[in-house]
Amino acid sequence: MSYEDLLFQNPGPTNIPSRVLDAMRRPIMDYRSDAFREIFLDCQNGIAKVLRSSGPVVIYPTTGHGAWEAALVNVFSPGDRILVLDMGFFSRGWADYARRFGLDVQILQGNGSEGINYDELFRLIDGDTGPRRFAGVLVTQCETATGAMADCARVREVLNAAGHPALLLVDVISSLACADFRMDDWQVDVAAGASQKGLMMATGLCFTGLSEKALAASEKATLPRAFWDWGKALMGGRIQVNPPGTAPVQMFYGLHESLAMLFEEGLDSVLMRHERTARAVRAAVARWGNEGEVELFVEESIASPSVTAVRMKSGKGAEAIRSIALQEYKVQVGAGLGELHDKQFRIGHMGRLSAAQAIGALAGLEMAMRSHGLRLGEGAINAAMSELQHAAN
Amino acid sequence: MSYEDLLFQNPGPTNIPSRVLDAMRRPIMDYRSDAFREIFLDCQNGIAKVLRSSGPVVIYPTTGHGAWEAALVNVFSPGDRILVLDMGFFSRGWADYARRFGLDVQILQGNGSEGINYDELFRLIDGDTGPRRFAGVLVTQCETATGAMADCARVREVLNAAGHPALLLVDVISSLACADFRMDDWQVDVAAGASQKGLMMATGLCFTGLSEKALAASEKATLPRAFWDWGKALMGGRIQVNPPGTAPVQMFYGLHESLAMLFEEGLDSVLMRHERTARAVRAAVARWGNEGEVELFVEESIASPSVTAVRMKSGKGAEAIRSIALQEYKVQVGAGLGELHDKQFRIGHMGRLSAAQAIGALAGLEMAMRSHGLRLGEGAINAAMSELQHAAN
Amino acid sequence: MSYEDLLFQNPGPTNIPSRVLDAMRRPIMDYRSDAFREIFLDCQNGIAKVLRSSGPVVIYPTTGHGAWEAALVNVFSPGDRILVLDMGFFSRGWADYARRFGLDVQILQGNGSEGINYDELFRLIDGDTGPRRFAGVLVTQCETATGAMADCARVREVLNAAGHPALLLVDVISSLACADFRMDDWQVDVAAGASQKGLMMATGLCFTGLSEKALAASEKATLPRAFWDWGKALMGGRIQVNPPGTAPVQMFYGLHESLAMLFEEGLDSVLMRHERTARAVRAAVARWGNEGEVELFVEESIASPSVTAVRMKSGKGAEAIRSIALQEYKVQVGAGLGELHDKQFRIGHMGRLSAAQAIGALAGLEMAMRSHGLRLGEGAINAAMSELQHAAN
Amino acid sequence: MSYEDLLFQNPGPTNIPSRVLDAMRRPIMDYRSDAFREIFLDCQNGIAKVLRSSGPVVIYPTTGHGAWEAALVNVFSPGDRILVLDMGFFSRGWADYARRFGLDVQILQGNGSEGINYDELFRLIDGDTGPRRFAGVLVTQCETATGAMADCARVREVLNAAGHPALLLVDVISSLACADFRMDDWQVDVAAGASQKGLMMATGLCFTGLSEKALAASEKATLPRAFWDWGKALMGGRIQVNPPGTAPVQMFYGLHESLAMLFEEGLDSVLMRHERTARAVRAAVARWGNEGEVELFVEESIASPSVTAVRMKSGKGAEAIRSIALQEYKVQVGAGLGELHDKQFRIGHMGRLSAAQAIGALAGLEMAMRSHGLRLGEGAINAAMSELQHAAN
Repeated sequence: MSYEDLLFQNPGPTNIPSRVLDAMRRPIMDYRSDAFREIFLDCQNGIAKVLRSSGPVVIYPTTGHGAWEAALVNVFSPGDRILVLDMGFFSRGWADYARRFGLDVQILQGNGSEGINYDELFRLIDGDTGPRRFAGVLVTQCETATGAMADCARVREVLNAAGHPALLLVDVISSLACADFRMDDWQVDVAAGASQKGLMMATGLCFTGLSEKALAASEKATLPRAFWDWGKALMGGRIQVNPPGTAPVQMFYGLHESLAMLFEEGLDSVLMRHERTARAVRAAVARWGNEGEVELFVEESIASPSVTAVRMKSGKGAEAIRSIALQEYKVQVGAGLGELHDKQFRIGHMGRLSAAQAIGALAGLEMAMRSHGLRLGEGAINAAMSELQHAAN
Repeated sequence: MSYEDLLFQNPGPTNIPSRVLDAMRRPIMDYRSDAFREIFLDCQNGIAKVLRSSGPVVIYPTTGHGAWEAALVNVFSPGDRILVLDMGFFSRGWADYARRFGLDVQILQGNGSEGINYDELFRLIDGDTGPRRFAGVLVTQCETATGAMADCARVREVLNAAGHPALLLVDVISSLACADFRMDDWQVDVAAGASQKGLMMATGLCFTGLSEKALAASEKATLPRAFWDWGKALMGGRIQVNPPGTAPVQMFYGLHESLAMLFEEGLDSVLMRHERTARAVRAAVARWGNEGEVELFVEESIASPSVTAVRMKSGKGAEAIRSIALQEYKVQVGAGLGELHDKQFRIGHMGRLSAAQAIGALAGLEMAMRSHGLRLGEGAINAAMSELQHAAN
Repeated sequence: MSYEDLLFQNPGPTNIPSRVLDAMRRPIMDYRSDAFREIFLDCQNGIAKVLRSSGPVVIYPTTGHGAWEAALVNVFSPGDRILVLDMGFFSRGWADYARRFGLDVQILQGNGSEGINYDELFRLIDGDTGPRRFAGVLVTQCETATGAMADCARVREVLNAAGHPALLLVDVISSLACADFRMDDWQVDVAAGASQKGLMMATGLCFTGLSEKALAASEKATLPRAFWDWGKALMGGRIQVNPPGTAPVQMFYGLHESLAMLFEEGLDSVLMRHERTARAVRAAVARWGNEGEVELFVEESIASPSVTAVRMKSGKGAEAIRSIALQEYKVQVGAGLGELHDKQFRIGHMGRLSAAQAIGALAGLEMAMRSHGLRLGEGAINAAMSELQHAAN
Repeated sequence: MSYEDLLFQNPGPTNIPSRVLDAMRRPIMDYRSDAFREIFLDCQNGIAKVLRSSGPVVIYPTTGHGAWEAALVNVFSPGDRILVLDMGFFSRGWADYARRFGLDVQILQGNGSEGINYDELFRLIDGDTGPRRFAGVLVTQCETATGAMADCARVREVLNAAGHPALLLVDVISSLACADFRMDDWQVDVAAGASQKGLMMATGLCFTGLSEKALAASEKATLPRAFWDWGKALMGGRIQVNPPGTAPVQMFYGLHESLAMLFEEGLDSVLMRHERTARAVRAAVARWGNEGEVELFVEESIASPSVTAVRMKSGKGAEAIRSIALQEYKVQVGAGLGELHDKQFRIGHMGRLSAAQAIGALAGLEMAMRSHGLRLGEGAINAAMSELQHAAN
């Protein structure tokens, strides 16, 4: 199995650009040196800029699940009640982490294809009073397992309308640098993200962005913490370039480069490009589904700019298609997760992806589905091309 | 201008696979060592295998034009008459080299879109007698400037039918490892090739494959030669791993890897894949041309599996399309050369290229042409996809 | 500041071999694929082999401090008493982690240059009875801050002699693949290690090796855990190739290659090479100290094969020497940590390091110290060369 | 055999810096694009700057032997008489090329260890009158086979003193960017160089720098030429970025980077560093020879800053030492060439090489020689260190 000519459309990690891989390939340097400190600070500042945040950013040398844990243990105390908006596989995963630390988790069940009912959310929040009211609300901006978006600005409005003091924690792992996110404007208290999606980097760095309110909360929070402790990270001493242990120099080389690429293209341009590509992907899937055997998993109104889930109307066969797409047409897409296994496949369209590559991937998938004998509506590729026409405008 | 997400469809050099670039990145070694000698010999043997030749191969550390010069100076003497089948820009270039060395060059003019008239060739060869008859016939298997193929087997038949003793020299630069080539079976005397096309390597290595007859001719040939001299290269002493000077170790690392990739995929599979991809490209261009403003440059019967030239019916505008394709859709294609500048663009489809990537490139070109306001026939991408359906079979 | 011609002698991370950096540079693959699973399992098995362990290995996508935390939270419960052998900066760091999780930490103070007093340890262990006796003993095999070794086999003897049931936890971060370690033979219960020292990899992977006894303890341990939870990691389902979140594919590519290099050289050969190089370094430092102004920090009997600390007899000036060595002679060495800052520098000699490179580094340091006006004993480099003579035997 | 921890001290190609290998690893670009043209022109200008030349530079995509041939065929006509200063293996090689093109070669025999007798040269030049006087004088600035330098400025003085119109051609392959060279000041007419020595690049690019006089000569010269023709290269049309065929893009990426490194360090600093390192190497060899079994091959007055040949007093055994140095001590040095095989080994000290690495290499060689049982004088390494003390001053 060769990866040479693969179009890698997993919904993260994304295809890592050559510039980033090259940066990771450079000779190691002393991570306690001034030269490295500069690279590290650029990375911190760059992530804050992508988060549109004026607050501090703590980078951890690990995966996004680390950011989940860091977000929780720094602001909560055992027994705290929290509300989790359940969008699917990954938001449930975060809730599971919370329960393991002894938090009292209440779930607001979202609808798989329609997302969160914000009226229901308002009733819940507005009615939540008394000493044991929610200490935090956990939102997954993009549920990577389905490609459904939560409206973080609206969650903030609900909290403010109800005058509820809960911290707002947002998982931006598969949405950052793909969808609009405004940490300051939306008064998000903790944003938990990772390197391997919209940031176009290898897997292995994650981070939490913090508000002043989150920082204040961390001083009172009593969950035990050492590795993830913000206090250690933010003391500002020169040794603290990467708080828990040795800084992974090669990773920071890579992140430094991928952030540079983002800012060269321009964050707004990057977001528009993601919107455009996602519209093209959905246009193709919609055509396939017109008297065909697959369909979009989520409603247009909550569809993610970074990942699109394609549901098998028959409820099965997604794995066979993934396998043909990979082996015969050299297009890698993501599997359905958990209970959705074999019921859907997921097309990642995050990171650096040209219009031509996106069409190539869709064409590869269409050929794979036809090879498998699936009935598909006509005109999918042309519909996608129409959306991408004038890509650079 | 970023090259990160580019589909690189120049008709050579091709997109260099990661495995090959990685190989070129390895630490240098002593080029006079046994370990390097093994790499070098593997490369020699590998090229012979791709040429389907049992004769020696002389590798030079330079570009394909070097192979042109090497082929000429080793077998000819000043004043020798030779026949050049003129297929376009590059065959004319080789003829120019011959003239500069004092050879008496006769041209058999091919037709741009229909190629060589083999009856005419037979008449010419059959009537060529006497002491000053042709010492050699120069054929460019694939004219990279137009994508027209010459039929080398048929040229050999003509020579044999006429009992003509001329050496048969073939430029396989843009056809080797893309189109069928059979050095032994077709009694080709000198094959001149290079690394950066079907062999998927970086530019910088070229080679001549030789028949026994060519080797014998080289002993009598009196054109001056030093750098290109086969005699130096074939003495077989251990210092001769790469005759003219220091062996470019990084280049041989790369060629060693790209040959390994070829043989892993299987030479026959590679050729079939090129045929299939080329059919898909031509199917798309044919549809575009159906009441549209572009068309195929050459007839189907002589169309190359490695490069397809697309002619602007209006005789201009190719450069504008190339520019839009590159800037807006991230598809790089080749320019028209010489008198064909701006009159055509050329799609390279050689080397490692998946079905999905090929469709992506065609879609990018279609979007670029539509952006430019060109009228195009419908159904091009679907037609290409039909050809690539069941790509792995 | 260029890193091109630097001899990188930090006591971790080490100079990363080209083969490993090249492996990390390969195109990404699906971390849920069979092909990746094989790479992952090879890494798990390889680490077990280096640990000389028949038990399971849990790999985490982060730094060695992560292995510290993982070791603690999986086997202990709040309030558990533990004994920490204090060897210096890093063993104290681990103790600090333990306190933050509410463990009751007792310190056995080692002597900086002479190490642990095992008689004192025996008295302490032997007298430790009753319901609140030590649940675990924490040992740092090599204290990276001083280059002092603890004798793990002897700690095990003490525990067995006293019939004490405490778990034995060992930090092998800067000793693994440098010094002898025998997890099974010494009945070590948890070994905590990382990628960037003797394993020659980039920073960013760590691991815990477990005994059956540790695994059993983890089932009763009540410290909260999610990210680090062994249970999640060892369920053995196919999704669990790297338990907490997305597997860092590039990192595993690199580890796979560095383990291959270790086994090609042979673990025993690697250990002997480290011993020999360390003897050479100490021979040089001893000569410098003969009527000179620097000396070895620790006694020969506890000197590490991976790192050697060089103490300024005057108690200051180490930073100036590090700076000259780096800027003028292109030799990077480590700083004194914490209270030892400026009082010593540390020469790392772990990972892939040839005899010639080791001498080069020592010569660079000697030139730097002389440039700084330090008085040094004669014959240091010759003494080191004598130790390295017949390096390959 | 691993190359990971090797000190690579061949007298070219040199150890290629990571920055250069990384540059060569970048994705390919269109060699006919403006972006590439800029890279190419930077390379041309950079080489001119290193040559200290105001004249044009023609870069060829091949090895230094190509520059030899290019220099000859562009300025001479069949039967021209030329004078070659015979310094050893490589200057004889160039003479051989000249003979193969029908030039009438007269040799001025240099003395292996003392070099050229300039009085003898003056007598020869001054007495050379009439119609068939020398059309050119060929000088090898550094004879790589022995490390002997020719004094190009003095050759120019001789020609001027005699009022002799011969072209002055200099092979700077193993001296450029190591030793002082002044094309304009010394009125050198053709300088022939290559990428893989002082320029720190991979093997595969070479070049000729030209004076106006050389250019004028080329218009009258009648040796046949196509691939090497300056006229083609200097037409200045945009297609001519790299005259003979496809430009080797990866190579130019690398050269662009290595030239940048040279200018960052500063050409004067680079030359001084080479002088200093060479003095250190010779100091060591001189000590070894003090009642020992090896000695310097050439006199101090003509010793090269880039390569030092070490002669076995017994006349044999150099190969055994090279083998031990490589296998046991990981130091690669060059072999004796031609008749000097086994009689000497050659230490390359060109390109990026730190003081510490140089000492490491010398130490490795000393250990290898002692392993082989050779008697050596004492104090070699200390003597070398004394020369390198205050390396950055």
